[in-house]
Amino acid sequence: MKTVRISLAQVNSVVGDIAGNSQKIISYIKAAKTIQADIVVFPELALSGYPPEDLLLKPHFIKENNLYLKRILKASEKIVTILGVPYAYKHKLFNAAAIIYNKRLLGFCKKIQLPNYGVFDELRYFDSGEAACILAFKTGLRVGVNICEDIWHAPGLAQTQSLKGQSSIIINISSSPYHANKIHLRQRLLAKRAKETRNFIAYCNLVGGQDELIFDGASMVIDPEGKVVARAKQFCEDLLTVDIVTSKRTRKFYSRVSTSLRLERIRIAHKITRKKIDILNRIEKIHKPLAEIYDALALGLKDYVAKNGFKRVILGLSGGIDSALVAAISTDAIGKNNVVAILMPSMFSSKETQNDAKRLAANLGIKLWVIPINNIYKQYLMTLREPFGSRDVDITEENLQARIRGNLLMAFSNKFGYLVVTTGNKSELSVGYCTLYGDTAGGFALIKDVPKTLVYKLARFKNEKEAKEIIPKSLFKRAPSAELKKNQRDQDTLPPYSVLDSIVDAYVQKDKSVAAMLKAKLSKKAIRGVVALIDKNEYKRRQYALGVKITPKAFGRDRRMPITNKFTQ
Amino acid sequence: MKTVRISLAQVNSVVGDIAGNSQKIISYIKAAKTIQADIVVFPELALSGYPPEDLLLKPHFIKENNLYLKRILKASEKIVTILGVPYAYKHKLFNAAAIIYNKRLLGFCKKIQLPNYGVFDELRYFDSGEAACILAFKTGLRVGVNICEDIWHAPGLAQTQSLKGQSSIIINISSSPYHANKIHLRQRLLAKRAKETRNFIAYCNLVGGQDELIFDGASMVIDPEGKVVARAKQFCEDLLTVDIVTSKRTRKFYSRVSTSLRLERIRIAHKITRKKIDILNRIEKIHKPLAEIYDALALGLKDYVAKNGFKRVILGLSGGIDSALVAAISTDAIGKNNVVAILMPSMFSSKETQNDAKRLAANLGIKLWVIPINNIYKQYLMTLREPFGSRDVDITEENLQARIRGNLLMAFSNKFGYLVVTTGNKSELSVGYCTLYGDTAGGFALIKDVPKTLVYKLARFKNEKEAKEIIPKSLFKRAPSAELKKNQRDQDTLPPYSVLDSIVDAYVQKDKSVAAMLKAKLSKKAIRGVVALIDKNEYKRRQYALGVKITPKAFGRDRRMPITNKFTQ
Repeated sequence: MKTVRISLAQVNSVVGDIAGNSQKIISYIKAAKTIQADIVVFPELALSGYPPEDLLLKPHFIKENNLYLKRILKASEKIVTILGVPYAYKHKLFNAAAIIYNKRLLGFCKKIQLPNYGVFDELRYFDSGEAACILAFKTGLRVGVNICEDIWHAPGLAQTQSLKGQSSIIINISSSPYHANKIHLRQRLLAKRAKETRNFIAYCNLVGGQDELIFDGASMVIDPEGKVVARAKQFCEDLLTVDIVTSKRTRKFYSRVSTSLRLERIRIAHKITRKKIDILNRIEKIHKPLAEIYDALALGLKDYVAKNGFKRVILGLSGGIDSALVAAISTDAIGKNNVVAILMPSMFSSKETQNDAKRLAANLGIKLWVIPINNIYKQYLMTLREPFGSRDVDITEENLQARIRGNLLMAFSNKFGYLVVTTGNKSELSVGYCTLYGDTAGGFALIKDVPKTLVYKLARFKNEKEAKEIIPKSLFKRAPSAELKKNQRDQDTLPPYSVLDSIVDAYVQKDKSVAAMLKAKLSKKAIRGVVALIDKNEYKRRQYALGVKITPKAFGRDRRMPITNKFTQ
Repeated sequence: MKTVRISLAQVNSVVGDIAGNSQKIISYIKAAKTIQADIVVFPELALSGYPPEDLLLKPHFIKENNLYLKRILKASEKIVTILGVPYAYKHKLFNAAAIIYNKRLLGFCKKIQLPNYGVFDELRYFDSGEAACILAFKTGLRVGVNICEDIWHAPGLAQTQSLKGQSSIIINISSSPYHANKIHLRQRLLAKRAKETRNFIAYCNLVGGQDELIFDGASMVIDPEGKVVARAKQFCEDLLTVDIVTSKRTRKFYSRVSTSLRLERIRIAHKITRKKIDILNRIEKIHKPLAEIYDALALGLKDYVAKNGFKRVILGLSGGIDSALVAAISTDAIGKNNVVAILMPSMFSSKETQNDAKRLAANLGIKLWVIPINNIYKQYLMTLREPFGSRDVDITEENLQARIRGNLLMAFSNKFGYLVVTTGNKSELSVGYCTLYGDTAGGFALIKDVPKTLVYKLARFKNEKEAKEIIPKSLFKRAPSAELKKNQRDQDTLPPYSVLDSIVDAYVQKDKSVAAMLKAKLSKKAIRGVVALIDKNEYKRRQYALGVKITPKAFGRDRRMPITNKFTQ
């Protein structure tokens, strides 16, 4: 029976802020020492921030990481520090875990499974490690270290570490991008791996927002029976300290070791001593589904604002449900004093929507400007009278209005330094039901990955959470409208959102063919129409701002479709 | 001494248009049969178009390729057809060359070296082949087939084919993205490989524009001495037919075969017969540097317009050199009747620039609308008077004007179905000297990869080519200005373009650090300022339209930088 105390330091790194990240890392090492941890663990590439993308191609970026790694060494007295860093060796670059002890760099455990699908491009940057890494403590304790994707494959590295390496604990450092419900997937997988290997698994995940990605934290320790014995918070920094009591190694389930990996032992002189402090292995609650998505969106905005040097945001309030939700999340994320709204009514804006927008702003306690656009709009029409001649009024005039609003929002942004948050949802973006440079103008598209049906649920969730009507009830009842012409409703040109969202899910997320969808009894007419719109509007998505990924497949780096494309099946 | 007749069918495929591409392929097979070719060769992934990106993740896309491959078989009587296709086998997907003869599919040669750098993401989609492929003709002729990147590595596949496989000809099918001067690089490389292997190399390259990529064709045959014996045209479809006379195999330079690749023989019953037609191995000229870039840009626009169902384009003419060049290239690409220009003067537009814009439009013979923006601009200022209060006039008011112009251009686009071509150059885009949703509004950013210094050279080239002043001389002399406030000049806020372009080249293209640039004696003050601007303006580039890549590293898929990024060295 041996007890080892492990601290999982779930930090919020900033990509490229190596100096800032290293200071944060050092402060967490100190905190872990204060509670007499034997090992402190940081997430994948915690020093550089994740994902650093093409910064990794700059040799001086790698050097800078090295430089700060050396400074961190000094803080590592009497505590084993496991830290995610990029590591260059002989013209190769590795995604590695630096193993540090007593001011010395003992070695690097290199990531073997490099993901190159979905949002990942790791084969663009990294070479694959070739050894299963084992920390061999003087006391006999043996700990396997691996990195993110390494633990997703079985039989794989974890089996090798447990069987060949005789480990009783496996530490996995991760930067695992969030999507809704992923924590349950992760937890099931880690439990499975723990049971297979009869090891404790200590999983340290990154937290924070980085462009379109959210990292949700929730680092955890799972025992060899597959039971969660400790879990850190979701969506915020946390230091989770756990006492792990390892018994004699028991039988392994897997008799076969999958890989022909070399075993690499890193010997550690650290002697685990009797502890003076009692540690309670705490298990933080997991968010319920809607709360989880809501908080993910809030963290995404908060971090984008803070990490890019903004303070305040501005958004257009239309009196519709989308902008209402965006305003509510923004207020929760950065505070009501940092959210400014503009209502920009035209001759097509109803009294009801204008009043709802005002009521919402009052409920949230945010500043609201009312800036009518009629005069500007009329001036455009006069200016275009000659070239347009006797042509019919069409979508051109609708887009003019949306672009006037985009221009006004950007003027506020330029004059006051606000970040413009756009309010379009995933359903609209899928079919291009939006005006490029109009309602799409802005730096952060908060709900671009949230389908319309989920927008309603999240808005309802917000009201329920506050136990009062923050978002006016009428918004849930009124038929959605862009209000760009008289008596316009979204459903004049689009199928009902419940149908639209199911088609988007099948076609975009699941890559179903039209033929397969027809078999699945989705509305025939709707399918053809929606699929054609999705394909045709890739050009709009290409110029759209980034926003928080909350589904398994978001538009952007997750789905790389050509604009020039004749395949529509 | 054996003669074999090979036709290189340098086709312009459309991504996703499998039916259309297969018709084109069949017509080229017929043409090759007419001149009694023994072998007809098509580029890499010619059937699907290249690059198909995430279409490759759709199982029904792969099935559709298979379906049309079967139809192509029927056309292959008495001619060996080598065709680039995606090939799925046992849960793996390969980038392959289908080998077809007498209506039968004889096998697939699979790509081994999968590029995953720069613009390439092939490891996202494909598995690597494991065999060196040899076509073993009944007559004794042995031909190695490999795909694009396969031939760039040495010692590599070509050596294996030549030594183990006893080939005397190596056929390489490529879809090699263009950048300026790359043809010389390619030709040197192929010549080197020919000499090393003592093989003829028949290189068939794709032609055409696909989103930001251009494929420049210039397929060629190189003899074992490294001499070009035949070359197809640049930038257009071509069928290059060559008689290759192979002698007894001579000594190979390389004694060592690099790879432990299995050898895969595809036996071909085709008997080469005496030819009735005389073939002259023609060698098309290579474009001179500026002509090459000019034609690449023209092809990029022409194909984007045609492949996306447009007919006409519209652009804003400012009287400056950038929009003048864009107008000239557009006119050459799609004809003067398909190019519409708008001049949108404000109170800050000088008489000189307005007159120059008019003269240019007259010289090109394109339609010009003159739409003053003063009234609209004033209306915006009045509308914003209250919220802006007594704040100073600043960049906000400049951006307002640019965005009014963007809105007007888009209104023309919406009303008449024109594609808006934006006119910003690479220097401006690097440092963000442009207005998002203003001058950046549009669907195709023709010269986004052309630095300002090169813009001047290309404009001069155009005038020299026509031997008259198409682009007015005054544009070359006048200091560049955005004309968004009184007496404004680009060089008030930016270093001279020659300095700016050299910094962009060092920092963006060559990934130099600030420290290294300082050593290289670039202007100290300029470096710090320009680098900061480049880093800060990633968000603008992310929302920019795509445009033709002409340098080794264009903004876009070539350079994947985080927006949230604190690393600026």
